[in-house]
Amino acid sequence: MRGAIIHGAGDVRFEERPDPQVVEPTDAVVRTVATCVCGSDLWRYRGVSPVRRPTPIGHEYVGVVEQVGDAVRTVRPGNFVVGGFLHSDNTCAVCRRGMQANCLHGGGYDGCQAERIRVPNADGTLVATPGEPDADLIPSLLTLSDVLCTGWHAAVSADVGPGSNVVVVGDGAVGLSGVLAAAQLGAGTIVAMSRHADRQEVARQFGATHVVAERGEEGRAQVLELTEGIGADGVLECVGTGEARTQAVELARPGGTIGVVGVPHGDLPVDALFWGNKGLRGGVAPVRAYLPRLLDLVWRREIDPGRVFDLTLPLADVAEAYRAMDERRAIKVLLEA
Amino acid sequence: MRGAIIHGAGDVRFEERPDPQVVEPTDAVVRTVATCVCGSDLWRYRGVSPVRRPTPIGHEYVGVVEQVGDAVRTVRPGNFVVGGFLHSDNTCAVCRRGMQANCLHGGGYDGCQAERIRVPNADGTLVATPGEPDADLIPSLLTLSDVLCTGWHAAVSADVGPGSNVVVVGDGAVGLSGVLAAAQLGAGTIVAMSRHADRQEVARQFGATHVVAERGEEGRAQVLELTEGIGADGVLECVGTGEARTQAVELARPGGTIGVVGVPHGDLPVDALFWGNKGLRGGVAPVRAYLPRLLDLVWRREIDPGRVFDLTLPLADVAEAYRAMDERRAIKVLLEA
Repeated sequence: MRGAIIHGAGDVRFEERPDPQVVEPTDAVVRTVATCVCGSDLWRYRGVSPVRRPTPIGHEYVGVVEQVGDAVRTVRPGNFVVGGFLHSDNTCAVCRRGMQANCLHGGGYDGCQAERIRVPNADGTLVATPGEPDADLIPSLLTLSDVLCTGWHAAVSADVGPGSNVVVVGDGAVGLSGVLAAAQLGAGTIVAMSRHADRQEVARQFGATHVVAERGEEGRAQVLELTEGIGADGVLECVGTGEARTQAVELARPGGTIGVVGVPHGDLPVDALFWGNKGLRGGVAPVRAYLPRLLDLVWRREIDPGRVFDLTLPLADVAEAYRAMDERRAIKVLLEA
Repeated sequence: MRGAIIHGAGDVRFEERPDPQVVEPTDAVVRTVATCVCGSDLWRYRGVSPVRRPTPIGHEYVGVVEQVGDAVRTVRPGNFVVGGFLHSDNTCAVCRRGMQANCLHGGGYDGCQAERIRVPNADGTLVATPGEPDADLIPSLLTLSDVLCTGWHAAVSADVGPGSNVVVVGDGAVGLSGVLAAAQLGAGTIVAMSRHADRQEVARQFGATHVVAERGEEGRAQVLELTEGIGADGVLECVGTGEARTQAVELARPGGTIGVVGVPHGDLPVDALFWGNKGLRGGVAPVRAYLPRLLDLVWRREIDPGRVFDLTLPLADVAEAYRAMDERRAIKVLLEA
């Protein structure tokens, strides 16, 4: 089969790779129907994180089960499935507390921007859709694998609930998903920080009540004006840079909470949290915890998170997908396998 | 009147000072009945925080109102009152959200280890007791001014609730109050980290189910054994040093929360929070938010937080009180005015 391999900064190639096999009795092999490029893949593509050797890449997928190990009980060959960007057994002490991304027996995949993938812990990871999905549902189903659940985790971590006022830092696919999550969770005011017209438009479709294009002091002043002069109840930090993390802390009110999901690549003023009585919570999203609820919302077409995809390419053009994301020509690129 | 003035590291003197006056119509002047020395006062006494000029010191008190300004409505001369270590108007946008320590119009006092103090924002700060307290209630009432509410804030910030398993880092008066708070809030397992027999004893009286004397790796191993191998739901950080803050992060389970109230004097591994999906919340305790409930518990003798005082001295001996705290001869010293 073929799949994407990152050879170094700016160098992703679509190459022949060995066919994945069932290794453990709890494994499944899934033929991917769609996969995509994540903002976090760009850390390596841009040379911020090192690439020490050619490495299969990608961690988002939906597809059809081809094979299962003897111990797999909940999915069968032929099932259309969604799964998170990390696998989990969904039974350990950590999973039982809803933190499946930190599963004691979980981990990542060997590259999901590929025609087939091996999914360990299939029962604890994959959820079958109620039936064969219509083609137009595929983008939204694919967001369940990462960005929608990650944005949702930001909102849950920030204690967003009915009437909350919320600021979302980051207008990538995760930030936009955070806007959608805040709206679903009942937030009143939802401020999207965004400088790009196309992303502002999606933010508004997803439920943003206000858009603030300015950053730094000017952006802060505008947020304060919308939040009784004291900052937001919840701030969703969906970037990970030091600048974004610092801004997120500044935009929260005393007693407010910053929900962090951007992979940390910079400082965060931790003592300012203390003096401001501001909470910080979040991390890698426990997709499996959110999958049943969010799959149901997508399946019943109550939400349309797939709008974050604004470019679709064949999987063979994965290198172009990286270029489009890197150059911000696309919010997020869907790859059809 | 006379009061304590810190002149430099290790140098606290009881000296003549001007009598406090009502300056603003919202002020009260309170004759102190009891005051005390705080662990946070020791940062300056030990030279960790600089003393740039001779400065009145102390921020905990109970006493009797002597005078009030024209605008004061809720307390009258003759009332016995308790108040927090910061004053607050209890009406601003921040106070309305229960974060009175960050009141937009609040602040500190001009030294409460004194015979009399000026209390700005009297209505938003002071709460009168239902009547003249019995003498044996004074120590517990005095803990409301800081340590009990600060320990309570640690527990609330760490999301402690029925059935939580909790670890308390720090066995000073605040840590011990945190144990009491966790017990009151319904925690199941409460582990006090303490190496001192006298403090272990108070911790057990306050509701600790386990005491761990070891620190570092050995202490962590013992906590893991008590928490299904994954760490605690809630960790109360009641010290503030880098060592304590790091240990607190290590002892929380994925999805758990560290409630921080120790004044920060060291690093905290913020990226480890992210990768462990651990929350951090807390800061300076909003005493006024907790006062009504906790005063009621003290008044009805359901809790006896005053046990943290294991030495009582006349206010004139304030210098000896600092020495006893510094040398760990006392957990906390009550000063009778």
